[in-house]
Amino acid sequence: MSLPRRTVFFVSDGTGITVEMLGHSLLTQFEGIEFQHVTVPFVDTVAKARACVARIEDAARNGSARPVVFTTLVNGEVRDVIRAAQAFVLDFFEVFLDPLEGEFGTKSSHTIGRSHSALDTKQYTHRIDAINFALAHDDGVSSRDLDKADVILVGVSRSGKTPTSLYLALKFGIRAANYPLIPEDFDRLQMPGVLEAYRGKLFGLSIAPERLCEIRNERRPNSKYSNFDNCKFEVKQAENLMQREGIRWADSTTKSIEEIATTIMQDFKLERRVY
Amino acid sequence: MSLPRRTVFFVSDGTGITVEMLGHSLLTQFEGIEFQHVTVPFVDTVAKARACVARIEDAARNGSARPVVFTTLVNGEVRDVIRAAQAFVLDFFEVFLDPLEGEFGTKSSHTIGRSHSALDTKQYTHRIDAINFALAHDDGVSSRDLDKADVILVGVSRSGKTPTSLYLALKFGIRAANYPLIPEDFDRLQMPGVLEAYRGKLFGLSIAPERLCEIRNERRPNSKYSNFDNCKFEVKQAENLMQREGIRWADSTTKSIEEIATTIMQDFKLERRVY
Repeated sequence: MSLPRRTVFFVSDGTGITVEMLGHSLLTQFEGIEFQHVTVPFVDTVAKARACVARIEDAARNGSARPVVFTTLVNGEVRDVIRAAQAFVLDFFEVFLDPLEGEFGTKSSHTIGRSHSALDTKQYTHRIDAINFALAHDDGVSSRDLDKADVILVGVSRSGKTPTSLYLALKFGIRAANYPLIPEDFDRLQMPGVLEAYRGKLFGLSIAPERLCEIRNERRPNSKYSNFDNCKFEVKQAENLMQREGIRWADSTTKSIEEIATTIMQDFKLERRVY
Repeated sequence: MSLPRRTVFFVSDGTGITVEMLGHSLLTQFEGIEFQHVTVPFVDTVAKARACVARIEDAARNGSARPVVFTTLVNGEVRDVIRAAQAFVLDFFEVFLDPLEGEFGTKSSHTIGRSHSALDTKQYTHRIDAINFALAHDDGVSSRDLDKADVILVGVSRSGKTPTSLYLALKFGIRAANYPLIPEDFDRLQMPGVLEAYRGKLFGLSIAPERLCEIRNERRPNSKYSNFDNCKFEVKQAENLMQREGIRWADSTTKSIEEIATTIMQDFKLERRVY
C-alpha cells in the first residue's frame, strides 16, 4: 500500500527559507505521510498571492486531500488572499505577532523581508571574511593567521571538515580552519606541529570507516586511500590520537553538519556574528 | 534615550537553528526594542531543561522586563519545565502540531531532532557533491564538467559569486560554478568563450561600485584593482555585457545571499536536493 500523499506549499513574502524550515520540522513529525513540497517565495503583492492561490487550487484538484499551506506573510491583504484558498492554511506570523505585540506593548512594523536583509553591511562583511578564511585555511593549505581562527577542525581526509567549516562561516560568520590528520601524525602519535600553539581551538571530526570507505571510493576507487582496512586503520589512529591529546570530537556519520556546527558553537561558547 | 532591552532565549531539543530563524524573523518586526539573543540547543532532558530555566531566571532578575523564550520542544515534560520559568514562553510545536494532527487525522511521532538528521545519506552525499563542485569550479579555475552545473554565476571579481555558490551547495545541494568577468571580456564585448555552450545556465551578479571598492580595498589597498574609478568602470562594463547577452542578474548590494540564492532557484526552476 502506498503512503497517503499531501502537497505542502511554503509561501512567503521573502525567501521562504524560514517558513520552509519550520514547516519541514513540523512535517518530519508525521512519518506515515508522503509530502510533496512547493516553495513560493517573494509573494508580496495581491496579484502574486492570486497566482499562488491558482497553483494551490490546481494541486487541490489533482490530489486526494486538500493541500497544506504554511505561510509567513506580513501584509494582511496578501495573507487574506492566500487564506481564501481551498487548503489548510497556517500562518506563523499571525499566530505569534499578536501575543508578542501584547507582551511588548507595541505594534509590529509589518515590514516585509527583514530577516534576510542585505542592508546590514557589517554582517555581510563578517560572512565574507569567514568564508575567505575557511577557503584560505581549507585542508591545512595555510598556517598563516591561525591565531585568528575561532576553531580549528582536525580529522582524517573526508571526515566532513570542509562542509563544517563552510557552514560555520556562512551561517554564523565563524572563522574555522581545518587540518587533515595524516599517517605521519599517527606515526609520531602527535598532532601536526603547527597546531601545538592552538590546542585550545582544536575540535575533531570522526566518521564510521564504512561511510568513509564509500565516500573515498567515489573519489578514488580501488586505491589504498579508499581501501576499507586502511579507512578503519586511519579512523582508529585518529581517534586514539584525539583521545590521547584530550581533543573533543563529533562523529559526522551520526550527526548532521548543522548538529556538529551547533555543538562547536556551544562547546567553545562562540557567539554568532551573523543572523 | 536608550532603547528598551529584552533578553530572548531560543530553546530547542535539537540545534535550535529553526527556532532561532523563526524567532529572529518575528523580532525583526519590532524595531524599537533591543534584543539580546541566547541560544540553548540540545535541551532534551528534564535536567537540561532545569539548567536552562536557571539561566532564564538569572536573566529575569538582571533585566527590567521578563525574558522572551521561543522554544521548539517535542517532549511535553521538557516543555512543561521551561514553561514554568518566569518568562514569556512561546512554543512553536505546541501551537502547530495540534491543528496538524487534526488535519492529518493522525498523531505526530514526538521524535526529537528529526529536522537536521544525518540519517539521510543520500542528502548528505548531494550536499558534499555540491560543495566539492562549487570549490572545484570557483572563480573559473576549471571548465571541466560544466555540463553538470545547475547554474553558472558570472560577475566581476568580489561581486558575491563564491558565497552564493557555497550557499546554494550547502542549503539546497545545488551545483553552482562561478566565472569572473574580466577586462578581456569587456574588450571583446563577449562572455568568456568557454561559457558559450552554457548560455542557458548563466546568472549574473552585480554590485554597487562604492561597495565593491570597499571590499577590494580590504584585500588590495591602493591598487588599480580597488581604485574607485576602475570598480565603476568594471561594474558598468559587466552590466552592459550581461544586458547585451540577455543574462539576468541580481545586485548583491541590495539583496542578501539568501535572497539571491532563492531568486536563482526560482528563475531556473531548480528543485532543492537537500532539506
